[in-house]
Amino acid sequence: MLISCVAYQNGRKLADIPVEDISEYVKQPDCFVWVALFEPTAEELATMGEEFGLHELALEDARKGHQRPKIEEYGDSLFAVLQPVERVKTEQGTEELRVGEVSIFVGPNYILSVRQRTQVGFAAVRARTEREPELLRHGSGFVFYALIDNVVDRYFPVLDDLETRLERLEENLFVGVATRDKIERLYDLKRELMVLKHAVAPLMEAVGKLYGGRVPHLCQGTQDYFRDVYDHLARINQAIDNIREMQTTAIQVNLALIGIADNDVTKRLAAWGALITVPTLVVGIYGMNFENMPELKWAFGYPFAITMIVVIDAILYWRFKIAKWI
Amino acid sequence: MLISCVAYQNGRKLADIPVEDISEYVKQPDCFVWVALFEPTAEELATMGEEFGLHELALEDARKGHQRPKIEEYGDSLFAVLQPVERVKTEQGTEELRVGEVSIFVGPNYILSVRQRTQVGFAAVRARTEREPELLRHGSGFVFYALIDNVVDRYFPVLDDLETRLERLEENLFVGVATRDKIERLYDLKRELMVLKHAVAPLMEAVGKLYGGRVPHLCQGTQDYFRDVYDHLARINQAIDNIREMQTTAIQVNLALIGIADNDVTKRLAAWGALITVPTLVVGIYGMNFENMPELKWAFGYPFAITMIVVIDAILYWRFKIAKWI
Amino acid sequence: MLISCVAYQNGRKLADIPVEDISEYVKQPDCFVWVALFEPTAEELATMGEEFGLHELALEDARKGHQRPKIEEYGDSLFAVLQPVERVKTEQGTEELRVGEVSIFVGPNYILSVRQRTQVGFAAVRARTEREPELLRHGSGFVFYALIDNVVDRYFPVLDDLETRLERLEENLFVGVATRDKIERLYDLKRELMVLKHAVAPLMEAVGKLYGGRVPHLCQGTQDYFRDVYDHLARINQAIDNIREMQTTAIQVNLALIGIADNDVTKRLAAWGALITVPTLVVGIYGMNFENMPELKWAFGYPFAITMIVVIDAILYWRFKIAKWI
Amino acid sequence: MLISCVAYQNGRKLADIPVEDISEYVKQPDCFVWVALFEPTAEELATMGEEFGLHELALEDARKGHQRPKIEEYGDSLFAVLQPVERVKTEQGTEELRVGEVSIFVGPNYILSVRQRTQVGFAAVRARTEREPELLRHGSGFVFYALIDNVVDRYFPVLDDLETRLERLEENLFVGVATRDKIERLYDLKRELMVLKHAVAPLMEAVGKLYGGRVPHLCQGTQDYFRDVYDHLARINQAIDNIREMQTTAIQVNLALIGIADNDVTKRLAAWGALITVPTLVVGIYGMNFENMPELKWAFGYPFAITMIVVIDAILYWRFKIAKWI
Amino acid sequence: MLISCVAYQNGRKLADIPVEDISEYVKQPDCFVWVALFEPTAEELATMGEEFGLHELALEDARKGHQRPKIEEYGDSLFAVLQPVERVKTEQGTEELRVGEVSIFVGPNYILSVRQRTQVGFAAVRARTEREPELLRHGSGFVFYALIDNVVDRYFPVLDDLETRLERLEENLFVGVATRDKIERLYDLKRELMVLKHAVAPLMEAVGKLYGGRVPHLCQGTQDYFRDVYDHLARINQAIDNIREMQTTAIQVNLALIGIADNDVTKRLAAWGALITVPTLVVGIYGMNFENMPELKWAFGYPFAITMIVVIDAILYWRFKIAKWI
Repeated sequence: MLISCVAYQNGRKLADIPVEDISEYVKQPDCFVWVALFEPTAEELATMGEEFGLHELALEDARKGHQRPKIEEYGDSLFAVLQPVERVKTEQGTEELRVGEVSIFVGPNYILSVRQRTQVGFAAVRARTEREPELLRHGSGFVFYALIDNVVDRYFPVLDDLETRLERLEENLFVGVATRDKIERLYDLKRELMVLKHAVAPLMEAVGKLYGGRVPHLCQGTQDYFRDVYDHLARINQAIDNIREMQTTAIQVNLALIGIADNDVTKRLAAWGALITVPTLVVGIYGMNFENMPELKWAFGYPFAITMIVVIDAILYWRFKIAKWI
Repeated sequence: MLISCVAYQNGRKLADIPVEDISEYVKQPDCFVWVALFEPTAEELATMGEEFGLHELALEDARKGHQRPKIEEYGDSLFAVLQPVERVKTEQGTEELRVGEVSIFVGPNYILSVRQRTQVGFAAVRARTEREPELLRHGSGFVFYALIDNVVDRYFPVLDDLETRLERLEENLFVGVATRDKIERLYDLKRELMVLKHAVAPLMEAVGKLYGGRVPHLCQGTQDYFRDVYDHLARINQAIDNIREMQTTAIQVNLALIGIADNDVTKRLAAWGALITVPTLVVGIYGMNFENMPELKWAFGYPFAITMIVVIDAILYWRFKIAKWI
Repeated sequence: MLISCVAYQNGRKLADIPVEDISEYVKQPDCFVWVALFEPTAEELATMGEEFGLHELALEDARKGHQRPKIEEYGDSLFAVLQPVERVKTEQGTEELRVGEVSIFVGPNYILSVRQRTQVGFAAVRARTEREPELLRHGSGFVFYALIDNVVDRYFPVLDDLETRLERLEENLFVGVATRDKIERLYDLKRELMVLKHAVAPLMEAVGKLYGGRVPHLCQGTQDYFRDVYDHLARINQAIDNIREMQTTAIQVNLALIGIADNDVTKRLAAWGALITVPTLVVGIYGMNFENMPELKWAFGYPFAITMIVVIDAILYWRFKIAKWI
Repeated sequence: MLISCVAYQNGRKLADIPVEDISEYVKQPDCFVWVALFEPTAEELATMGEEFGLHELALEDARKGHQRPKIEEYGDSLFAVLQPVERVKTEQGTEELRVGEVSIFVGPNYILSVRQRTQVGFAAVRARTEREPELLRHGSGFVFYALIDNVVDRYFPVLDDLETRLERLEENLFVGVATRDKIERLYDLKRELMVLKHAVAPLMEAVGKLYGGRVPHLCQGTQDYFRDVYDHLARINQAIDNIREMQTTAIQVNLALIGIADNDVTKRLAAWGALITVPTLVVGIYGMNFENMPELKWAFGYPFAITMIVVIDAILYWRFKIAKWI
Repeated sequence: MLISCVAYQNGRKLADIPVEDISEYVKQPDCFVWVALFEPTAEELATMGEEFGLHELALEDARKGHQRPKIEEYGDSLFAVLQPVERVKTEQGTEELRVGEVSIFVGPNYILSVRQRTQVGFAAVRARTEREPELLRHGSGFVFYALIDNVVDRYFPVLDDLETRLERLEENLFVGVATRDKIERLYDLKRELMVLKHAVAPLMEAVGKLYGGRVPHLCQGTQDYFRDVYDHLARINQAIDNIREMQTTAIQVNLALIGIADNDVTKRLAAWGALITVPTLVVGIYGMNFENMPELKWAFGYPFAITMIVVIDAILYWRFKIAKWI
């Protein structure tokens, strides 16, 4: 589905243009065309491929999807794949991370974004860039930056959510006993962390090649901007590694806590067991059938035995209490 | 066994040719010969070695087999070893991964593939390349790419299967208790993962040297294609590492769940134990032989004792129920 | 909030100058201006940006904060972000690590420090540099070093504290049993360690680029000083990795100790259980109702039974004592 | 002990020569001398040092032994240390890995091998090289390759043995319960793995410098051969890492299985316990001394009680059987 | 404290000279001065700084101490920090590793060693170098090597001790049960290992820069010697990593053994429990008060019951013995 197709000149919007005119505008020197597609059909993509002269392999990647994040050079144009990550409600009412895909084709005078499996579009990017004509004058390279920056900014709320969940898990870690639920949440945290990690890490590596050293021609005026994006990605990546390491430690700590709890339960049970079995021994004694057992004939033999049992249990209880077994 | 031996010129098939004529065709400038062998005898290999002038060490590798995946330069020709991985039925009816071996010799005007321990041949590759004469015109380098691409594409169903199995394990992880069976499947998953990993990782490293920087002469017109293959391999490799990390976490989580289950069983047993031992104490009391025990003479002493036992157990049961011990 | 704004010439303080005059002084050849801000408003920052001609992206980083430590080149000027780490008292009376942020803009003839979320200022740095005019003559590069050096020096007490806590944990590790408290402290240690790690590691990497090889022009006369700072950071980093590894081992060791304690408790309980259940069997024997049980008619049958019980328990107790079960 | 001392010219053996003549032959242009020593005395080594003009440090390494595998350049000559690994019978009848040491000095026209702590000599290498004069014509570099290749080939049976043992451990892992013996074998596997690893990994790194890029003069005609050796080492190294990873997983899996077994035993014991304690409660009831207990007076009260006990136990047994507790 | 101050010329000792004359001798072309200090005062260090013209930062490092091992270039001179590690007796009679510090300043014609917290001096180095005037002729670079070599040689006995302890732990691992003591020793081993690791690893990295590639001018004639030292360090480092990996495995193995022991204890207790509770049930049966229990009236009822108990226990004992529960 075509979302928009606009021609720009000297940092200013010229006009919304029909798809068929793209190849004309692309020929003009100071002009560039910006096209946005959303889940396009194979024909739409093929048309774009012809209008812009895109490389067959890049087109195939955009059509097939399910690429890992990357930025590739084809001659003097670039092909990028990004993975926006969103938290969405599933039909069962639970939440999960959904990984979308954004393919971007950039040439000296065109930029084409193909959005898949994500509802959030790039209207905000278009508004931002049109508000800053002096930057837009850098051409398609700046738009390219703005699109990547936008996708990267969307990672922060996802990351914040993961950090919050780790914190909440940490707060509960030493409160009460280890439960299946706590461990399940630790596992889920890890799973979502890996989803984010696999969107961020390859992109970071790819963006790292857009500044410093040899840089694609398209990014040459905007290196500082790409370094800024790289920096954001590095920050996210570091935070992910941090969560990952703390999560691993949390699982180990949980194992230790479960062992201790096991120990505590064993002790508590043993204490209560003693409070039952010791009296059982006492009543067993007075259940013996010896003819000559003076206590049996005492008038208060029975209350005496019961009292003895109560006293013994009271003493045991008190000692177990002191030893923190109960 | 010779599967086929065909000469090509300018991207078009010339003819099926007999093995003895290979060296003639190889001498012609725009011509290249494509030979496919399946589990050849030592003599067949030796003949090929003479016709194409192959290096002794490469021939020995192809003859002996059991190499790790690699791509080596011998002068201006290349020698590659690939490991296709297939899921096959064993004689016992179970399934297992089988690692085959494909050795490829490529020179400026020949390409020789030697297939071992894998039923799936390269007829599809031949059909695809003959369908695209403009690409086939790139010569043996493009056929080389097409062969590698074909082997790499076969990894995806194996990977999908491993991912599906991890997902199924994850779904079961927190359902019911940990069983030997679950752990056995986690271990098997890991084992097959390592098989795939060892086919993919060295190949990825090797293919990474066929584009960008200094590149063998043979691959110079087709660098974008080799980058595409590299990208597929990188994607598979990342997915493998992901499964690997989640599998490790799953085993740790299992350990924690087993600890918790242990704890739960202990509590449940203790609760049921209490429901038996407390009444045992009560009946022990009325089994004492004191002469002066009023209850013993009551008309309803016996039903009273039984009722007391039932009441005590009901209370205990209720409390254990509340504490989730039963 | 403006803390100070001073012009220097040839290593000597010229004068405290008003903010509006900055751009004048900056133009003079041997002169440089040193400005210190504390949690500035957006306008204050914007003013500075204009006076010094700072890059938009760097300004935005300083305004937004929450960057990871880094040192970036913008043309011939540098932008650095540091994270001082302080141990502060929380309102609940506990202590925690607080991560502040110091952004530094350095140009050939200016230096601007922006301090956030940290009470400790750089008065000491100013005093030190003014005491050494021959070094201050190196210009803003030397002040830049002195600021970084000051922040790095603040890591040492934090590190010492973490090392002391690890030592105390190690001393307690094998004393008494594993407790939730010990494990909680191990976890907290890890958490704070990661805070320090994330302040130190990226800074170390960044400082490593300020000496040897290609170095920003600003740092060229002071490379030995930056290497010294790097060395301090490397030392801290190594110490952190050491604590981290020992902490991991400590958790594993704790797991083993918990397992052993579990075992010991089980044995102790079993021993005490035997001391109760064996007599219970004995009294059960004499509770049997056989008509022909000679002992029952003995005059001293009862004391005999009690004595037997005591003797049996004494023997059991002695044997358990020897086996170290009790 | 001198094993052999032979002069070669143009790939052909000239003659066995006395040690004193070495320096003469070494001076002739197309000639090279090949000396093999086995556990030489200090004097023998010193003599060689003089005849060949070996470097003091290399000689000291060969004399002292216990080096790690390495290949060092001394001017235009090379000094290599290899560690052949053999499985030998100890005096106690058990088997263990023994690490030998082979020091090789190579110059443009000499090669000296010093064998220590290994029975297997290099007669096979000598035979192989003499069989291929066209290769031997490459000079000492080719002999150097052949020696390394020979040592590397000896790693394969050791590796095969380790792989077989891992497979056997894996087959037993899920059969029966975890035993000390299984774990001991996992530990031993790891220990021997590390022995092989430390012989292979440094050698692989060293051989990697003998082909591609800047290469010692001696190896220049034989780079393809050294790449072949490197490839073998890389394959062994990969296999070692694979065993290592599976071994780690196997230990973790064992831990989980032990936990599950613990749980199973607890349940089984509890079930049998219930089959004893429930009847104990029943007989306790009929051991109460109430005057008015009708059952006690029934003619078939006793068989009734016994029957009741049997029925209760049968029901319990059946339910435990269903729950797989017994 | 000044240990010695000697001038050398052409590899021969000239004379012991007073500290004040150092600057004179340093000016002479073929001459170099070798000074050894032990825990010098700040003034002694300052004097040296002036005589030799040492860099302020290096002097500060030597004065403050507690550096990590490193080798730094200051112009054409070098500054090295080494950490000798010694096993010393503490006042409590136990042994521990003590980390000393040796700072070395080397210039083209001077060498200054500053020893701290270590009793062992460098008299042996002085003797060795004076014995080899042809090597000493290399000047201060060779003395520098000899000092480092001496410190590195001191690591070997410490490493041997750690290896011996690991071996002893391994021998005990599968003998008897896991004890707190075994685990404590595993932890201590790790701790000392890390001490050695942190002395060795950074030094290895630093020495690696003194041969091959670009090398400080001072080390140019003695590269082979520094490579030799590097090799020793690499060997120690590898051995450390090996101990570290085996130690980690040993802890995991211990965990498994503890789990198995737990299981064994549970089974043994259950078996003994059965030997007590089954008879208790039997005697309970004959304690029932049914009027019509024929056995009670048998003349040999009592011995019959006792015999039955003994027989039942004998059978149980025999079966438990077979099942290896007892």
